[in-house]
Amino acid sequence: MFIIGERINGMFRKVARAIQERDEATIASLAQRQVAAGAHALDLNTGPTADDPAEVMAWLVQVVQRATPVPPSIDSGRPHVVEAGLRASKGRAIINSTTGAKEKLDVLLPLAAEFGAGIIALTNDERGIPRNAAARAEIALTIVARAMEAGLAPDQLYLDPIVLPVSAAQDQTKEALEAIRTFRTLCDPPPHIIIGLSNVSQGGENRPLVNRTYLVMAMAAGCDAAILDPNDDDLMDALRTAKILLNKEIYAEGYLRTRTA
Amino acid sequence: MFIIGERINGMFRKVARAIQERDEATIASLAQRQVAAGAHALDLNTGPTADDPAEVMAWLVQVVQRATPVPPSIDSGRPHVVEAGLRASKGRAIINSTTGAKEKLDVLLPLAAEFGAGIIALTNDERGIPRNAAARAEIALTIVARAMEAGLAPDQLYLDPIVLPVSAAQDQTKEALEAIRTFRTLCDPPPHIIIGLSNVSQGGENRPLVNRTYLVMAMAAGCDAAILDPNDDDLMDALRTAKILLNKEIYAEGYLRTRTA
Repeated sequence: MFIIGERINGMFRKVARAIQERDEATIASLAQRQVAAGAHALDLNTGPTADDPAEVMAWLVQVVQRATPVPPSIDSGRPHVVEAGLRASKGRAIINSTTGAKEKLDVLLPLAAEFGAGIIALTNDERGIPRNAAARAEIALTIVARAMEAGLAPDQLYLDPIVLPVSAAQDQTKEALEAIRTFRTLCDPPPHIIIGLSNVSQGGENRPLVNRTYLVMAMAAGCDAAILDPNDDDLMDALRTAKILLNKEIYAEGYLRTRTA
Repeated sequence: MFIIGERINGMFRKVARAIQERDEATIASLAQRQVAAGAHALDLNTGPTADDPAEVMAWLVQVVQRATPVPPSIDSGRPHVVEAGLRASKGRAIINSTTGAKEKLDVLLPLAAEFGAGIIALTNDERGIPRNAAARAEIALTIVARAMEAGLAPDQLYLDPIVLPVSAAQDQTKEALEAIRTFRTLCDPPPHIIIGLSNVSQGGENRPLVNRTYLVMAMAAGCDAAILDPNDDDLMDALRTAKILLNKEIYAEGYLRTRTA
């Protein structure tokens, strides 16, 4: 299970302030805590900022790479911000994200190829977010084909079934699970399948419980990556237990104490 | 999700003593607490007893039916004990359990038909416990066919994929999940699919965490019944959250406070 830590995001007030003040220690600490808890990569999102977002993204990448050895997930809807992050990164990065929309794919797939980056691909397109698993799979197929044409290796691609808040679109959480099962059959070896976990509980109550319950379901369906909060201990315990139950990690007494999954 | 409470079992010391002393109040209290927590039926197992197990089973059925309105799940490997429980029961009961073995089916299916009882069917047979999902499905098909021949309605049958302890047979927990998915396709409407949840954590550590993680996976795979401890609040919270995420119950704020699922 590939874990991308979600906590360096300018939507959080503490992060927004650290960005504004170019407070390297706060960002470095958030990075290190997430990696210590099991993150294999770190999502970086500038949030709304009065400064040049491309410059802020490059700064975030540099700060995080000085503090930790893991790749950045460059989270921006603007290609020039993504490119600034990629240029600032030493070693492999992840682009977060493209969609299946042609104008996105035309710009972001060549960037992924040029920089040898991973790329997260949301399975929506110009027509909006699909209402069921089959429509998500149709867009996923287009994305897979376009990624292959662009010269990406299968393991550079992270298909995202788009998890919506259960409090707002309850029928869609199940559709996303079904989409995960379908995505696994689209190519061989299967692409990575990633979810933005916290979306599922957005705007609702019992958020940690809803998050960890859905993570377990998604893993059982075949999801092998997630953007989540690795400092939620109950969530990480559920994740490690799910790996054991899915035979992805060898059972051993004390498995919850080996926090390096 | 149909919940059978597991706590009235002579393997527990407190229950063994209550049986020995014919302590009706203790058994009634265990029954009421489980029903209050959400059990839709109550498993009754005499455990090893110096008395006549058929007489003990009949007594348990009567005590539980005086205390609660839910059906008993008559848990015994001996047909005459099962029959004694069925005779003692007012209204529908559940037989726990047959296997796919011919000598079991020959005796227990006619009993289920005669008493209009539900019947849990473990998908093993004379050859032992299957090593994979396909072999479980093969036995399940035999059971479904024999149950139909015996005149049972599809909703009287609870197929059990046999959950083994993850600490002892780690590859089998995933096979059981796959079996659940397969069982759903065996007939239309699909049979009930039940798991004996606590087996998964037998002999291991973090038992409540392992139980609730596996329950969520099994529900996502299509399991619609379980024998479990309804007085494990964290387990029941996970169950209710899973129902919401699978769109089996309408999302509403405060859903964890409505403990009548």
